Amino acid sequence: MSTRRPCIGVFDSGFGGLTVLKALLKLIPHADYLYFGDTARLPYGSKSVETVAKYAVEAAHFLEQKQAQMLVIACNTATALALDRITAAAKVPVVGVVEPGAERAAASSAKKKVVVIGTEATVSSHAYRKALQAWGVQAHEKACPLFVPLVEEGWNEHRVTEEVATIYLKEAFAEGFEDADVLLLGCTHYPLIKPILHRVAPPHVKIVDSADATADAVGGLLRRLPLADPPEAERRKLPRVTFFATDSVEKFRRLGPKFLGLPVEDVQHVDLKE
Amino acid sequence: MSTRRPCIGVFDSGFGGLTVLKALLKLIPHADYLYFGDTARLPYGSKSVETVAKYAVEAAHFLEQKQAQMLVIACNTATALALDRITAAAKVPVVGVVEPGAERAAASSAKKKVVVIGTEATVSSHAYRKALQAWGVQAHEKACPLFVPLVEEGWNEHRVTEEVATIYLKEAFAEGFEDADVLLLGCTHYPLIKPILHRVAPPHVKIVDSADATADAVGGLLRRLPLADPPEAERRKLPRVTFFATDSVEKFRRLGPKFLGLPVEDVQHVDLKE
Repeated sequence: MSTRRPCIGVFDSGFGGLTVLKALLKLIPHADYLYFGDTARLPYGSKSVETVAKYAVEAAHFLEQKQAQMLVIACNTATALALDRITAAAKVPVVGVVEPGAERAAASSAKKKVVVIGTEATVSSHAYRKALQAWGVQAHEKACPLFVPLVEEGWNEHRVTEEVATIYLKEAFAEGFEDADVLLLGCTHYPLIKPILHRVAPPHVKIVDSADATADAVGGLLRRLPLADPPEAERRKLPRVTFFATDSVEKFRRLGPKFLGLPVEDVQHVDLKE
Repeated sequence: MSTRRPCIGVFDSGFGGLTVLKALLKLIPHADYLYFGDTARLPYGSKSVETVAKYAVEAAHFLEQKQAQMLVIACNTATALALDRITAAAKVPVVGVVEPGAERAAASSAKKKVVVIGTEATVSSHAYRKALQAWGVQAHEKACPLFVPLVEEGWNEHRVTEEVATIYLKEAFAEGFEDADVLLLGCTHYPLIKPILHRVAPPHVKIVDSADATADAVGGLLRRLPLADPPEAERRKLPRVTFFATDSVEKFRRLGPKFLGLPVEDVQHVDLKE
């Protein structure tokens, strides 16, 4: 049994992955976290497989160098497009957000019909459709490229966001999926507009996001690894989080708390090219 | 006098600069063009000075290596944040979009009051305000971060875009600028929503964009350089344009024509890290 607290590396293109970190901090407080936000190259959601895979592998290597003992790909696009490549490139265990989210959505759907919303790249990859099919569940995927900029504009409770959501969800709950009973949020920004999505989705629909499901998956994996189970004195300490950003540290400190719900203090700048 | 056609390098974070290339092709058809779109790292508009300057200097060096004899920074953010750094790093003449746009806006404003809209980074830099002050014109700058994603969603004539424009322009024509008589489009995406901006702006307002003004500035500079004035046989040829993109070539071919109004065929992939 290790006497050290586990060190978990969490990676996203920017800020959205902080919603996953928030779930991790709640479920697994007896760990240290390294959060890497590739803010100089965000967003990934509109970019190609090759580009996203290259960026994600660089981020994974960076976190390994910083002694992360496990990697959480807290970005739907990076998971959907590059989980295989990241897992192949990494020396430590890797958890993505797609499988846990799909499993939870499948378990929540009595109709076995799920609507998935995400970025253009995530939807084009059909990663969620494939993961849900493995659970015997049909999926209808719909790209919602305006949700991320609307959240970043701070319009989480704005009539424009509600109008955009109405348009997107009308197209999502269509083509035989009018009676789908689960809406799976396939992007880490979307939990911030959950109240609007609840109002706009058909009333019988349950909303599932990947953050809690991913935290559960990380907890399960931790219990099976030798690095888990620190002694009581270590367990009682608060989690330590170090943040790394490829763009402005000041901006990360300013925007981070909107996603994390906690202050974001220890932020270091990283230039991956060097 | 040179017997060769001039070779002009045009640079943007992505697709918006194609509106400037469109104006250049119309005004200066007797040239060859290299267009570089840094699509793997777009957008620049939400990023920091350091990051944008680094990317822009890399792009300038790339175009110089490809034999560009002049550089046009067809990106408001890169011009606003990094024109000095690009000019210092380049061996060939550099033209940005801010000065020409500001000069034309100043000439168009009887009231000497101009409203400027652009990305968050362009507005924070106050590059337009400073350029307009030099012409004795007051400026009110307003960031409109949702316009780029709305254009990229293809909602150029959509009621949501009109609603967002109404909200943004209400805040822009305020604080003593209710009677401003010019709206300067400080982002190369915005010409695509000009019809909506015309409807939403106060009726007395004239809209100025930087694309035509920048093409005029390039034409003026060309006439003063030894590389201009190719012989008649060379002048009659159609302009040749080679495109370079850091993300998917296929996506560039697909989205490019929406901005250029012409087919986009010869696109080559570039990885600036190599």
